[in-house]
Amino acid sequence: RPRKTINEVLFFPSEMACVEHIFNPTSRFTCLCQLPHGVETSFSRLLSHILSASSSLDLCIFAFSNMDLSRAVLALKSKGVIIRVLTDKDYAAIKGSQTGVLRKAGICVRCNVGSVYMHHKFAVVDGRLLITGSLNWTLTAVQANMENIIVTEEPDLLRPFMEEFNRLWVVYDPA
Amino acid sequence: RPRKTINEVLFFPSEMACVEHIFNPTSRFTCLCQLPHGVETSFSRLLSHILSASSSLDLCIFAFSNMDLSRAVLALKSKGVIIRVLTDKDYAAIKGSQTGVLRKAGICVRCNVGSVYMHHKFAVVDGRLLITGSLNWTLTAVQANMENIIVTEEPDLLRPFMEEFNRLWVVYDPA
Ligand SMILES: [Zn+2]
Ligand SMILES: [Zn+2]
Repeated sequence: RPRKTINEVLFFPSEMACVEHIFNPTSRFTCLCQLPHGVETSFSRLLSHILSASSSLDLCIFAFSNMDLSRAVLALKSKGVIIRVLTDKDYAAIKGSQTGVLRKAGICVRCNVGSVYMHHKFAVVDGRLLITGSLNWTLTAVQANMENIIVTEEPDLLRPFMEEFNRLWVVYDPA
Repeated sequence: RPRKTINEVLFFPSEMACVEHIFNPTSRFTCLCQLPHGVETSFSRLLSHILSASSSLDLCIFAFSNMDLSRAVLALKSKGVIIRVLTDKDYAAIKGSQTGVLRKAGICVRCNVGSVYMHHKFAVVDGRLLITGSLNWTLTAVQANMENIIVTEEPDLLRPFMEEFNRLWVVYDPA
């Protein structure tokens, strides 16, 4: 029987809980940090979907400063996943932006030029799964704000986002 | 044959074009404004979906200053559509916010309290159609920024947003 198409909605702020097991699902060690353990949250679901990438991650995000999400992207990079990041040039220049960390790890990051905001907040995993919503990849968005994310495999929704990403990727080629 | 489930993606900035015919589809008069006419745009699609409401519009929006969108909501109100608006208290206090206009027209507007952002940008039309994405209801978002909106009838996506709206509506009841 075919697996059901993923159509999931996550709301934030997320409960605070340890996400160490999402990064190290097979670890034999018990995490000793102070956060609650064994709790599934909106944020742990989001991390799991991102870490499910096996071939590609296309990320188009206004603001990216969240350290856990940065860790997830770096973990994918070290697994050999092809990563492309499009982000807003003004936010990329802000203290705390992860853009520099990603570039140092060899990830290709492109910024919009001009005076308008690149206000998208979406990711496409393996050309298969769309993650999109109001949530920027910041700590405030995850832990404080009221935010939403849709996670979907619906082709009618996925395809336009993939096409828009590829279009913008060419538009903002600095070469 | 049943109509196909709506699953539509709109990208912004929208082309600039006259939207008078969206408000007055049966008018016998030719609009004389300077904008292009007879052009379907992301913004005219968005307006059409909003104006398709016949019984209810639940709107949960961080920033609402766009005059055309305000006109659409007021048009629905005068048709007898039940309208509920949840918005961010900081943005509601900003010059250009349409919150005051809506309230004067008798529309119930509630604001979050506390220091976090109510960062959602979604609407539910007739409990049937979800409109959600990165787009705030401002002129800059529509005409300048790179933004996205999903318009969907998919129940797995619609239902959680309706439940979250109803939850927040109670949480931010000022009474
Ligand atoms: Zn822990
Ligand atoms: Zn006109």
